[in-house]
Amino acid sequence: MPDTIFDRILRGEVPNHTVYEDEHVLAFLDIGPLAKGHTLVIPKEAKAHLHELSDESAAAIGRALPRICRALIEVTDVDQYNILQNNGARAHQAVFHVHFHIIPKPDAAQGLKVGWPVGTLDHDEASEMAARLRELTQS
Amino acid sequence: MPDTIFDRILRGEVPNHTVYEDEHVLAFLDIGPLAKGHTLVIPKEAKAHLHELSDESAAAIGRALPRICRALIEVTDVDQYNILQNNGARAHQAVFHVHFHIIPKPDAAQGLKVGWPVGTLDHDEASEMAARLRELTQS
Repeated sequence: MPDTIFDRILRGEVPNHTVYEDEHVLAFLDIGPLAKGHTLVIPKEAKAHLHELSDESAAAIGRALPRICRALIEVTDVDQYNILQNNGARAHQAVFHVHFHIIPKPDAAQGLKVGWPVGTLDHDEASEMAARLRELTQS
Repeated sequence: MPDTIFDRILRGEVPNHTVYEDEHVLAFLDIGPLAKGHTLVIPKEAKAHLHELSDESAAAIGRALPRICRALIEVTDVDQYNILQNNGARAHQAVFHVHFHIIPKPDAAQGLKVGWPVGTLDHDEASEMAARLRELTQS
């Protein structure tokens, strides 16, 4: 996997504003924040996409997120926020090391903007798809 | 906490297209999909916001996400996607039971649209904020 800015941060070669660290996870302030307190949470495991992560890294990130969110709420006094994690350039991924954004939403102008081009579900097709997904997630 | 549609799904009172289930987590197809395969991943624990989740639920969701993403990639043949989890009405939360969206991005027209009103980081302010966050996440 090519080296990324986050790998350089993990190796201590690039300074960062660390907000949390454990055996599997590092979290630091985003240098291009959408709002005050915008934080990135990354696995120490060097994987580009979420589907490539080990159970251990993924569980550690899951466990860390609420803890970091509680601290952010206390420090920013903003209790509304979005968690976003992008996979692939088309899905707005810019750095190819897994990262979860925690983006406070202090008001309508700041924070993440979301567009929601909603469709409808074909229930026959959905039943078939869900059955295949259950098979795959159970194996 | 008020009852939500997801609590009713968890109690088996509302049908759903289940794609994954374990002791702590249920995942099913969104009935208002942004793209084919749009999936919701929820804790069985009844909490409105991510910062209220127990370590156990949060870790279980973290662990489940990559597994579900791998199955979705295989079934939809789309390997670009966004993970989104909203907290608070201002941050676009509509159902007040924690849920992570997995939203495939098959092309520019479908899937999540993201607006990114980027700011800059004041490094002095950031140093102070990060120090407070480290204290809080370590306690």
